[in-house]
Amino acid sequence: MSEVAGRMAIQAGAQWLERSHGGSGILLGGVPGVDRAHVLVLGGGVVGTQAARMACGLGADVTIMDVNLDRLRYLDEVMPKNCRPLYSTPLAVRDLLPWADLVIGAVLIPGAAAPRLVRREDLKLMKQGSVIVDVAVDQGGCVETCRPTTHADPTFTIDGVIHYCVANMPGAVPRTSTFALNNATLPYSLELAHLGAAKAIKQNPALATAANVIAGKVTHPAVAETFKLKFTPPQEAAELIGAAPALA
Amino acid sequence: MSEVAGRMAIQAGAQWLERSHGGSGILLGGVPGVDRAHVLVLGGGVVGTQAARMACGLGADVTIMDVNLDRLRYLDEVMPKNCRPLYSTPLAVRDLLPWADLVIGAVLIPGAAAPRLVRREDLKLMKQGSVIVDVAVDQGGCVETCRPTTHADPTFTIDGVIHYCVANMPGAVPRTSTFALNNATLPYSLELAHLGAAKAIKQNPALATAANVIAGKVTHPAVAETFKLKFTPPQEAAELIGAAPALA
Amino acid sequence: MSEVAGRMAIQAGAQWLERSHGGSGILLGGVPGVDRAHVLVLGGGVVGTQAARMACGLGADVTIMDVNLDRLRYLDEVMPKNCRPLYSTPLAVRDLLPWADLVIGAVLIPGAAAPRLVRREDLKLMKQGSVIVDVAVDQGGCVETCRPTTHADPTFTIDGVIHYCVANMPGAVPRTSTFALNNATLPYSLELAHLGAAKAIKQNPALATAANVIAGKVTHPAVAETFKLKFTPPQEAAELIGAAPALA
Amino acid sequence: MSEVAGRMAIQAGAQWLERSHGGSGILLGGVPGVDRAHVLVLGGGVVGTQAARMACGLGADVTIMDVNLDRLRYLDEVMPKNCRPLYSTPLAVRDLLPWADLVIGAVLIPGAAAPRLVRREDLKLMKQGSVIVDVAVDQGGCVETCRPTTHADPTFTIDGVIHYCVANMPGAVPRTSTFALNNATLPYSLELAHLGAAKAIKQNPALATAANVIAGKVTHPAVAETFKLKFTPPQEAAELIGAAPALA
Amino acid sequence: MSEVAGRMAIQAGAQWLERSHGGSGILLGGVPGVDRAHVLVLGGGVVGTQAARMACGLGADVTIMDVNLDRLRYLDEVMPKNCRPLYSTPLAVRDLLPWADLVIGAVLIPGAAAPRLVRREDLKLMKQGSVIVDVAVDQGGCVETCRPTTHADPTFTIDGVIHYCVANMPGAVPRTSTFALNNATLPYSLELAHLGAAKAIKQNPALATAANVIAGKVTHPAVAETFKLKFTPPQEAAELIGAAPALA
Amino acid sequence: MSEVAGRMAIQAGAQWLERSHGGSGILLGGVPGVDRAHVLVLGGGVVGTQAARMACGLGADVTIMDVNLDRLRYLDEVMPKNCRPLYSTPLAVRDLLPWADLVIGAVLIPGAAAPRLVRREDLKLMKQGSVIVDVAVDQGGCVETCRPTTHADPTFTIDGVIHYCVANMPGAVPRTSTFALNNATLPYSLELAHLGAAKAIKQNPALATAANVIAGKVTHPAVAETFKLKFTPPQEAAELIGAAPALA
Repeated sequence: MSEVAGRMAIQAGAQWLERSHGGSGILLGGVPGVDRAHVLVLGGGVVGTQAARMACGLGADVTIMDVNLDRLRYLDEVMPKNCRPLYSTPLAVRDLLPWADLVIGAVLIPGAAAPRLVRREDLKLMKQGSVIVDVAVDQGGCVETCRPTTHADPTFTIDGVIHYCVANMPGAVPRTSTFALNNATLPYSLELAHLGAAKAIKQNPALATAANVIAGKVTHPAVAETFKLKFTPPQEAAELIGAAPALA
Repeated sequence: MSEVAGRMAIQAGAQWLERSHGGSGILLGGVPGVDRAHVLVLGGGVVGTQAARMACGLGADVTIMDVNLDRLRYLDEVMPKNCRPLYSTPLAVRDLLPWADLVIGAVLIPGAAAPRLVRREDLKLMKQGSVIVDVAVDQGGCVETCRPTTHADPTFTIDGVIHYCVANMPGAVPRTSTFALNNATLPYSLELAHLGAAKAIKQNPALATAANVIAGKVTHPAVAETFKLKFTPPQEAAELIGAAPALA
Repeated sequence: MSEVAGRMAIQAGAQWLERSHGGSGILLGGVPGVDRAHVLVLGGGVVGTQAARMACGLGADVTIMDVNLDRLRYLDEVMPKNCRPLYSTPLAVRDLLPWADLVIGAVLIPGAAAPRLVRREDLKLMKQGSVIVDVAVDQGGCVETCRPTTHADPTFTIDGVIHYCVANMPGAVPRTSTFALNNATLPYSLELAHLGAAKAIKQNPALATAANVIAGKVTHPAVAETFKLKFTPPQEAAELIGAAPALA
Repeated sequence: MSEVAGRMAIQAGAQWLERSHGGSGILLGGVPGVDRAHVLVLGGGVVGTQAARMACGLGADVTIMDVNLDRLRYLDEVMPKNCRPLYSTPLAVRDLLPWADLVIGAVLIPGAAAPRLVRREDLKLMKQGSVIVDVAVDQGGCVETCRPTTHADPTFTIDGVIHYCVANMPGAVPRTSTFALNNATLPYSLELAHLGAAKAIKQNPALATAANVIAGKVTHPAVAETFKLKFTPPQEAAELIGAAPALA
Repeated sequence: MSEVAGRMAIQAGAQWLERSHGGSGILLGGVPGVDRAHVLVLGGGVVGTQAARMACGLGADVTIMDVNLDRLRYLDEVMPKNCRPLYSTPLAVRDLLPWADLVIGAVLIPGAAAPRLVRREDLKLMKQGSVIVDVAVDQGGCVETCRPTTHADPTFTIDGVIHYCVANMPGAVPRTSTFALNNATLPYSLELAHLGAAKAIKQNPALATAANVIAGKVTHPAVAETFKLKFTPPQEAAELIGAAPALA
Repeated sequence: MSEVAGRMAIQAGAQWLERSHGGSGILLGGVPGVDRAHVLVLGGGVVGTQAARMACGLGADVTIMDVNLDRLRYLDEVMPKNCRPLYSTPLAVRDLLPWADLVIGAVLIPGAAAPRLVRREDLKLMKQGSVIVDVAVDQGGCVETCRPTTHADPTFTIDGVIHYCVANMPGAVPRTSTFALNNATLPYSLELAHLGAAKAIKQNPALATAANVIAGKVTHPAVAETFKLKFTPPQEAAELIGAAPALA
C-alpha cells in the first residue's frame, strides 16, 4: 500500500499547487522555456522512491534525501536523471525548504514514530502557496504541523503553506489499492484455505502473530493489555480450533 | 499555452479518476504487480504529445492517435516506450474506447472546428467512471458531448463518463502560464518598444494582423464585419499614428 | 545458460510468428501507426527477464508475471517502460491468453517440476497463429501441451497454437553459449588445475557434489541409487586419488 | 513498407546467424560477460534506422553509416547509446567488414540503382558464417553479390558469407504489413470513394501519375513506351470516365 | 568543428574546476549524497547542445538557455532529464549566474559578433572559483571579459572567476577533429578531383565563393577590398583555368 | 571516496588524451560521424562502475571487466547501453589492450594487494598516446608499471603510454570530497558526541577497531607490532577514559 500512497502523493501535490486550490499556481514539469517546480522528497524508502519517480515522470526537479548511503547509491543508479539523491541532515533539509514548491514527507521507521524533519518554525522558510504532503501522518508525521485529515476535507494551511495529510491516501484509488492488497495477502489466504486455520497458524508464524483472537482466546499481546484480558499464545489457542477452518 | 494545457490535462484526468471524485478509482501508473491505467490521446500535435508524455511519466499505458504518418514516426522515435503511436480512423478510435480509462481530446485544427472523433452513442462503449478531458473544447470539442466548463464547476457526467472540459485550463497554474506567455510574446513587446507602434506594425505583418483597432480605425476584418464597421487595412491605419507609440 | 535461452526465446518466437512459418504474420514491434505484438512472459527470473528485455527491445507490448512482489518491484525499476510487471495468478494468466501473440514459459523452480500455468483447455482462449515458446520444457514445461523438440524439427501445432519447445535452445548459438559456459565454469577448472583433483574436491564442496565417480567409486547418491551401486562420500573417495590430477 | 522491411531485416539476420542455419552461432545481444554481436547498417534512412533500432534493442553493438552529416547528427541524438553513427566512405566500410557479424544493406536512393558499397572481393574480408541482409535488393542491391531470393528459399552462401535477399520481406508479416499499407493508402482510397475516379484524378496529381490505364487509355509514359502504345495524359483520359467511379 | 568545441568545453571546464587549477574544487556530477555542480549553457545551437549533453552525461545539473521556443521544445524532447531548457533574457541569465559553477558561452550568430550576455559587472554575481568557457571567443565572445587564449596558456582570472577562452579548442584533439573536418569537406574534394577545378567551380556555387584566388585573379570580394586588388567573379576566373585541375 | 576517485579517473583520462598533454588527441565521445574513443575499465566495483558511467555519459565505447558473474548481470541491467560488461581473464584483458584508448585500473580487493592485470610487456600491445589511469595505485596498482604520483606531477610515460597514478585523486575536488567524507563519517561523529568516547567505543565495535590509541594505551594490533609497544584491547582501554569525551 505504501507504493500506492507514494504515487498518490505527487498527484495530490500537483493538484493543490493549482491556484484555484490556493497553491502557488506552478505546473510540476513547467513547459519548455519555463522553469520546473522543485520537489523535495524526505525519505528514500518505498514511499519516497515512488513519489520521486512520479515527480520525475511529470518533469519536475526532484531532490530525494536519506541517511542511508547504500540506498542513495542505488537511487543514483536506477532513478531518472532529474532526481538528485542527497544525504539528509537537519541543516540540509532546512537549506532546501526555501527552494521547494512541494515537500513529500516519506520517512517511515517500522514500529516507531516518524522523526520530525520539518518543525513549526521551519514553515516560515517556505514559499507562500507551497504544499506539504505528509505520507507518514498516521505515524505522527515527519512534519511537526501535520495532523491527519480525510478525503472529504484533505488540507489546512499554516503560515501560507498548504498541508495535505490524508491518513488513508490509497482509499482514493480503491480499484488499484484492492488489487495491490490482494497481491500481498493472497499467499496467506491460500494457506488458510488449503490447510485450515489451525494448521496454518501452527505452521506459519507470520499468520500466528497477525491474529487478534483465536477460538475465543485473545492471542495478541497488545490487544490483551489494552482490554485487560488474558493473553493466550496463538499456537496454543490454535489447538482449540476444530476441523472446520473457522478463523476468528 | 497549448503545452501547459496538454500537461494539465493528465493532472486533471488523474484527479477525476479518484473514487472520491466519482471516477473508477484507478491510479494512472498502477503499482508493481497491478495493472496500469489506459490512456487514449486523440491527436499527436503539441497538446497531445505533452499529455502523452505526462501520462507516460506517471507510468500509464498510453496510446496516441494521429493521421499524419510522419508525425507518428517522429513520436515513435522520441516518446517513452509506454507510448504507442497508432494511425487514427473512426473505427480504430471506437475499438479503443472500451479499453481506455482516460481519454484526452487534443485534436486542434488551426482556424477550424475540431473534428468529432467521439460521438454521443460512443460513450456507451466506455467503462463506468472513466474520464474524458477535452482540451479542444473552446473550438467546439472533439468529443460530441463536451461543452465548456469552468474551474469552479469543472465536470459533468453523461452515461457514467466524467467530462472535464475547462475552457481555460492553463488558468489553474498562472505562475507557469504567465512565464510561458511572456516567452512567446516578448519578441513582439520588444519590437513595439524599440520601434514604436507605427513602425513595428508596418515592418512586421504578424503584429499588423494581430491588432483590432489602430488609431481609431478597425483593422481586423472579422471585427469590422461583426460590428458592421468600416474596415481599414492595418498598414494604412498605422500611418495615422503619431510619434508616440500609442497602440490602440 | 538460462540467459542465452531467455534471449533466444524471443528470437524464435518472432520467427515462428511469420506467416511463412504458420504464424499469425505479426511483427513484434509493429511499425509507427500499426499496433505492436503482445508478449506474455510467465516467470520473472533470469530467463523471463532476459526474454522480456529482448521483446521490449524489439518494441513489443510486454507483460511479465511473477508471484514474488519484491521481484516485481525490482523489474518495475530496471525494465524498459513497455514492460508491465503483473502479479501472477491462474485467473490473471487465463485473462491474458486471448491478448497474447507470443507466450514465453519461463517458470523454473530449481529441483522441482515447473508448475502447469497453461493447461490443455486454455489453448482455446488463444488466437490462431499465436506462438508458445516453453523454455522450461526440460523440467516438464509450464505449458501442459509442451513436449521437448529439437532444432531439426522445433515446433508442433495444437488448436492452432504453434509450440516451440526445443530442449537445448542455446545449442543454436554455440559461439555465445560456449563463452557463457566457460565464464561460469572457469573458476572450477582453475581450481582443479591448480590444486589437483584430490585437494580441490576436499576443499570445495561444490566440486565434491558435482562429481559422479571419483577414483572408481560412485560418489553421487542419485547415481548410486539408480544403478544399485555402492555410494562413497566424495571426500572419502578423494583420498584414494594419487598425486596426478586424474578426475574421473 | 520500408519500416517493416528494416525491422524484419534484423529478425532475419539473427535467425541466420544461428549455427543450425549455417551462421557463426552468435547471439546478437550476447549475454552479460560474453561479447555482443557486431551489426553494420549501411544507410541511415528509414530502413537503416529501423534496422539499427531493432539491433540495439536486442543488445548488439551497432554501427550505422551514412554520408549525410545532418542525418548522422540526428541519429546521434535519438538513437540508443549502443548505436554509433559513422560517416560512410568506401574505405570506412571496408575497414568495418572484418568486424561485422551482420551487415544490413539499406541504401535506397529513390529512382536510382542502389550504390555498390560491398563488392565481390570484399566478402573475403568478412568472417566465416557472417550474414548479409540486403534490403535494397529489388533496386539492384547495395551488395554486389546479392540477387533477389524468396521466402521459400531465402539465402545462398558465397565465400562463407550467408546472403539473405528476399525481395518481398514484409510479406512474412502480412498482418502488420497490411495495416501499414492501409495507413499509407487510406487517404487516396477515401478520395476516390468520395469524389469518384474522374474528379479525384483531376484534383490530385499524385493519383493521376499513379494510374497506368484510365478509361482504356494508357496514361503512364513508361508503360506506353514499353508496350509501344499511345500515351494519353491522365487528366485528359479522366474526362472520358462516366459518372460511375470506374477506375481502370 | 563546433561539435568538437562544444564537447571539449565541458572537459576543459571540469578540469579547471579542480582545486589544483584554482577552481572551486567541485566534481561536475557530485557523488550519490553530495550535490552536483551547476552548469549554465548560454545558447542552444550545435555547440551548446553538445556541451549540455556532455555535462548531463557527467551527471551535472544543467540549464540551457535560448531565445528560440521551437529549439527549446526540441531540446525538451531529446535531451537527458537533468537538462533544463529555459528562455533566455538578460534578467534570467543574471539570475542564474550566482547558481552556476560552470558557464559555457555558446552563442554563435553566423556572420555577426556574438551578443554580450555576461558583462564585466556580472562577474561579481558569480562564486569564487567558478569557471567560464567561452566557445564564441573568436567571434568576440558572448562574455564581455573574454579574450582569446592558447592551449599553452589557456586561462586568466578576473574577480575570482576563471576564464578559459582557447580560440582553437578542437586543436587539442586533432585525431577526432581531422576526421570531423574530412567528413565535412570530402564531398568538395571529390568534386574537385572528379571534375577538375574549372568545372567544379562553375557547377557548385559553394566552391566558387570559397576560393580566394583563381587562376591568378582575386575572386573573393573581402580579400580584394582588404588588399586593394581588382575583384574578378569566380565563375569568370574559372574560364581561365586550363585542363589541368590547378586550383590556386 | 572511491566514488569520487572513479568519477575523477575519466576526467583525468580525457584530459591526458589531449594532444597538448602528449595523448593521442582523441575526444572521448567522438562526434557524430567520427568514431568514439575506447575505454577499458578493469574492475566492476564502485570505482569501476562510476568510471564506466562517466565514460558512457561522455559518449565513449566502454568495456567493463569483472570476474563476478552476478555483478556483470547487474551492470548489464543498470548501465547505459554503450557499456559492455565482459568476463575478465588475463587473455581477454590482453585482447582488448590494442583496442583501448584509455584504461582505468579499478580492481581493489579490501585488505589485499591489487592483482597485476596489465604487465610491463603488455604495454607494447597498446597504442602510442593511449592513457592508463590506475585508481588502485595506493594498493600497489593493478598495472605493473604504475607507481604513485602527485597532483603536482601527475603522469609519466612508458613505451608511449601515459600513466596517471595520482594516489590522492579526490584531493583535486576537495569541496565534493569533504561532503562525501562527512556523509560517511557523520554517524560516528554523532555517536561520539552523544555518548562520549568511552561509551561509544564500548557500544560500537567499528569505532573500537578504528582507534589507534585510547587513554594512552595502544589499541591497534598493527600499530603495537610496528612500534614494538604493548597492545591493549580497545574496550579495556575505554574503561580508563573519564567522563569527559577525550578520544585520543
